[in-house]
Amino acid sequence: MSQHPNRARLLISCQDKPGIVSAVSTFLHQYDANIVQSDQFSTDPEGGMFFMRIEFDLGNSSPDFLRFKKEFHTLADKLDFEWKMELAARKKRMAILVSKEDHCLLELLWRWRSGELQVDIPLIISNHPTNKQVVESYGIPFYHVPVTRDTKEEAEQEVINLLKQHDVDFIVLARYMQILSPTFVESFPYRIINIHHSFLPAFIGANPYAKAFERGVKLIGATAHYVTDDLDEGPIIEQDVLRVNHRYSTQELRVAGRNVERIALARAVEWHTNDQVIVYGNKTVVF
Amino acid sequence: MSQHPNRARLLISCQDKPGIVSAVSTFLHQYDANIVQSDQFSTDPEGGMFFMRIEFDLGNSSPDFLRFKKEFHTLADKLDFEWKMELAARKKRMAILVSKEDHCLLELLWRWRSGELQVDIPLIISNHPTNKQVVESYGIPFYHVPVTRDTKEEAEQEVINLLKQHDVDFIVLARYMQILSPTFVESFPYRIINIHHSFLPAFIGANPYAKAFERGVKLIGATAHYVTDDLDEGPIIEQDVLRVNHRYSTQELRVAGRNVERIALARAVEWHTNDQVIVYGNKTVVF
Amino acid sequence: MSQHPNRARLLISCQDKPGIVSAVSTFLHQYDANIVQSDQFSTDPEGGMFFMRIEFDLGNSSPDFLRFKKEFHTLADKLDFEWKMELAARKKRMAILVSKEDHCLLELLWRWRSGELQVDIPLIISNHPTNKQVVESYGIPFYHVPVTRDTKEEAEQEVINLLKQHDVDFIVLARYMQILSPTFVESFPYRIINIHHSFLPAFIGANPYAKAFERGVKLIGATAHYVTDDLDEGPIIEQDVLRVNHRYSTQELRVAGRNVERIALARAVEWHTNDQVIVYGNKTVVF
Amino acid sequence: MSQHPNRARLLISCQDKPGIVSAVSTFLHQYDANIVQSDQFSTDPEGGMFFMRIEFDLGNSSPDFLRFKKEFHTLADKLDFEWKMELAARKKRMAILVSKEDHCLLELLWRWRSGELQVDIPLIISNHPTNKQVVESYGIPFYHVPVTRDTKEEAEQEVINLLKQHDVDFIVLARYMQILSPTFVESFPYRIINIHHSFLPAFIGANPYAKAFERGVKLIGATAHYVTDDLDEGPIIEQDVLRVNHRYSTQELRVAGRNVERIALARAVEWHTNDQVIVYGNKTVVF
Repeated sequence: MSQHPNRARLLISCQDKPGIVSAVSTFLHQYDANIVQSDQFSTDPEGGMFFMRIEFDLGNSSPDFLRFKKEFHTLADKLDFEWKMELAARKKRMAILVSKEDHCLLELLWRWRSGELQVDIPLIISNHPTNKQVVESYGIPFYHVPVTRDTKEEAEQEVINLLKQHDVDFIVLARYMQILSPTFVESFPYRIINIHHSFLPAFIGANPYAKAFERGVKLIGATAHYVTDDLDEGPIIEQDVLRVNHRYSTQELRVAGRNVERIALARAVEWHTNDQVIVYGNKTVVF
Repeated sequence: MSQHPNRARLLISCQDKPGIVSAVSTFLHQYDANIVQSDQFSTDPEGGMFFMRIEFDLGNSSPDFLRFKKEFHTLADKLDFEWKMELAARKKRMAILVSKEDHCLLELLWRWRSGELQVDIPLIISNHPTNKQVVESYGIPFYHVPVTRDTKEEAEQEVINLLKQHDVDFIVLARYMQILSPTFVESFPYRIINIHHSFLPAFIGANPYAKAFERGVKLIGATAHYVTDDLDEGPIIEQDVLRVNHRYSTQELRVAGRNVERIALARAVEWHTNDQVIVYGNKTVVF
Repeated sequence: MSQHPNRARLLISCQDKPGIVSAVSTFLHQYDANIVQSDQFSTDPEGGMFFMRIEFDLGNSSPDFLRFKKEFHTLADKLDFEWKMELAARKKRMAILVSKEDHCLLELLWRWRSGELQVDIPLIISNHPTNKQVVESYGIPFYHVPVTRDTKEEAEQEVINLLKQHDVDFIVLARYMQILSPTFVESFPYRIINIHHSFLPAFIGANPYAKAFERGVKLIGATAHYVTDDLDEGPIIEQDVLRVNHRYSTQELRVAGRNVERIALARAVEWHTNDQVIVYGNKTVVF
Repeated sequence: MSQHPNRARLLISCQDKPGIVSAVSTFLHQYDANIVQSDQFSTDPEGGMFFMRIEFDLGNSSPDFLRFKKEFHTLADKLDFEWKMELAARKKRMAILVSKEDHCLLELLWRWRSGELQVDIPLIISNHPTNKQVVESYGIPFYHVPVTRDTKEEAEQEVINLLKQHDVDFIVLARYMQILSPTFVESFPYRIINIHHSFLPAFIGANPYAKAFERGVKLIGATAHYVTDDLDEGPIIEQDVLRVNHRYSTQELRVAGRNVERIALARAVEWHTNDQVIVYGNKTVVF
């Protein structure tokens, strides 16, 4: 996981057309950048969408990263790319929003401290004080922003302000049991990751675990996705399941649900952190 | 898989109450039967449902199986059991109903010929002639019963007649793309096993794979269940999933779906064959 | 997970012979105990080994647990049982031994605090001070017992003394990188649980992850087992694997290894805690 | 799975050095070829090995495939590539070698007939006549080449001759219980795929399932790999496992083994067929 200090990642989405890979790789070569890994996917070479992720190392005679990025801008404009270029060494600033349940929070904190998750965590916000102590034991500032029916709007604004003050790159809803307003969602497009349970068959509405129990499911699952205005219907990043059986009580199904949620969420956050995810339409390419 | 020739299986469902295991095991012991394996489950010891599966071998001084079963009847009545007792050596008579797609059919035929699936297959029925040759190459009679909009009722009656003439114990819908009437379903209560795709989230209606493709799912699944009047909503026996990614076309999702369907269906059929499944309410206990 | 306060668990191993289930269940019934769940397994009904696990609730007219246990002793002697009877409400006292790596430690602590793992943790011992702070933040006493080549024997004796002083029921080696002496192991027969990596194929000796990397494995695994004198060869309780690919560096294989270790170990510890595991020969029955 | 008729696949291995992607993609662009998908992997950008797989469609003004390939040869020589270029539409010619057990054979035949496996199967060879009928029911020529201790060498030569006469591209050992001589292996370098069981821990020598039973394993696995002179130690293409428990007899472990073998082998064959596998050292890159 130690890396070349000048390693960068480039993500591109555009209409597919001939010559894209050639143009980009020739650009990189001309500027003395060395491709370490690249992935590419086209929904349809004739008129479909084209996606590319390139990891590369700037070379000795490359311009510095900012200048390099600026030069690339010209090419990108010409070829009509949506794109993003990041230094791998620059850690993203991740905020966590959490309510009372701590399983997803702790999974992320543990992976962060063990070095698996290469992010900075400038703050953690909760509508309950429950997790204050554990968060602070990790040396991370904890903000308690209570939400009541009457203060919902102000509370949300306070959360947005905190996130902006701390210059956050992306937000993980680690079981944050509040619905975000369109204003909130639009402030961080495809930069809010949520986790929710998922079942075969699906159980809509309240008490899904009670319904899953009634129905006698043999698998329970979790889906990590980007938050859009369409509640729980944003682009899926990762899904996983755990096997259960008739001996599981509703409460034990819930426990199994927690365990699959933290695994699926941690993977989704890691992929986002490493710039491995590109959104298109309502789905994701995960390179 | 070679077994004691007098091995039998006993399945019991009843209201939970004290002394059930004692009464049953003492009965078996008195009649010189030796318990080989037993499983038991209670939804709630105080007023819940009680389920038990016992495998046992009749002993040298046991009465013959029919007499033994008759003696047990008296006990079962006294204790208000729903129950079933079967000789393991008696192979169940399984019919397969299939349309054009052969993946589930072939999986069952292969497991049957390899000895994994201990059943007799007196007949296979299809609304298309497509699979006639392969079925007959296994030495199994194939009946083509076409179904049109106008002949639906007569065709179904013909299928029921065939199943009854061949004294069938249970029926597997190995991708039989016809909806069964309540009359059909009631003729074989909890003895018809179906397989259908299942997704996280669920996609209702036509073209589920196209919808799953649009939604960018990362898992696709299959659910094997008993058929009830409530279409695709009967008690679940087994579920499984396969991992997919953004590179899968709709058609490739369908192929993955076929592969997970045959695995889940084969397991469900094996468990039913071994009398491992008890239905209660709309769910199953799988021992 | 809330339970009847008089719920108990009975584990039995013995030579298989007729009438065992009858004798035990009749005993329970006579003493007004109500069977909630039972599992039974026989390696061979004719002269094999027989294993049984029963969960039951003592009734209103049952004697108290200690007296009940004493009465059962007479039956158990007559039928030549190896057996164990525990109140479910009595939490086992679990010690954790750990070196520097904290992934297994933290998984256990998290499941303990969330109530998934129903144990008391009277102490945690380490040969390094590394994890002192996190352990103490959970309110658990931490003992640092350094081990050097010269002090190995005394250090081990000190660990044994601590475990005995704290009246420990079982011990989890949560990545404790010390080989235990036969004396240690014999002091806690089948009550020490260890976790180690496991690979297909196996890589013996030092640097298994480097070897797995060289060999290009597609799965890496972990095995949780009871410790016996035969290093890493004791009875297996649980195994699991994670999928990897050619992009994983040796270090990333190690990270994947950590994640599968904590899952497999947590499951094994939970099953041991719930008296679900019976050892026989060099293997386990997990009910 | 319908494809552009001029779709081709290019696999490249070489020492990593700057400008490879640029050179290749510019070449393709110049010849009016359109990249559909590309994957790339470098073990180490500074002096490591570089691997690339590109799918592309020849364009209207491209030269025909043979001429295109010839032009690429010049570039490949200059850049010191090991490489391979194939038309996707050209089906590879796959031979199957099988002994008595038919589970892997049938899995491959089923996937072939369903169109999942895009190959031609000019012949199937066996040292036993057991599977003659089923093979011929698929319309595939079956050759029975018996092997005895005394005729081993001639028999192998006869097999090699048959494979060469039928102009075979690659060979699948679908449970062919004969050790191949170095001569045989060298005739088809990295073009022979084998499947064998694999366990955690590993059990060397005869009766691995009996040993796995004794050891009480909780998982059994299978490894699909290319055959090299080092028996069962060639580059791994795919591995998978199935969960088992204490109730599995040795025979039932064997059945589980068969089921995981056919899944892992089918995947490996599909990847080889689609030119997704590159061998380096004793490992594989699977794109």
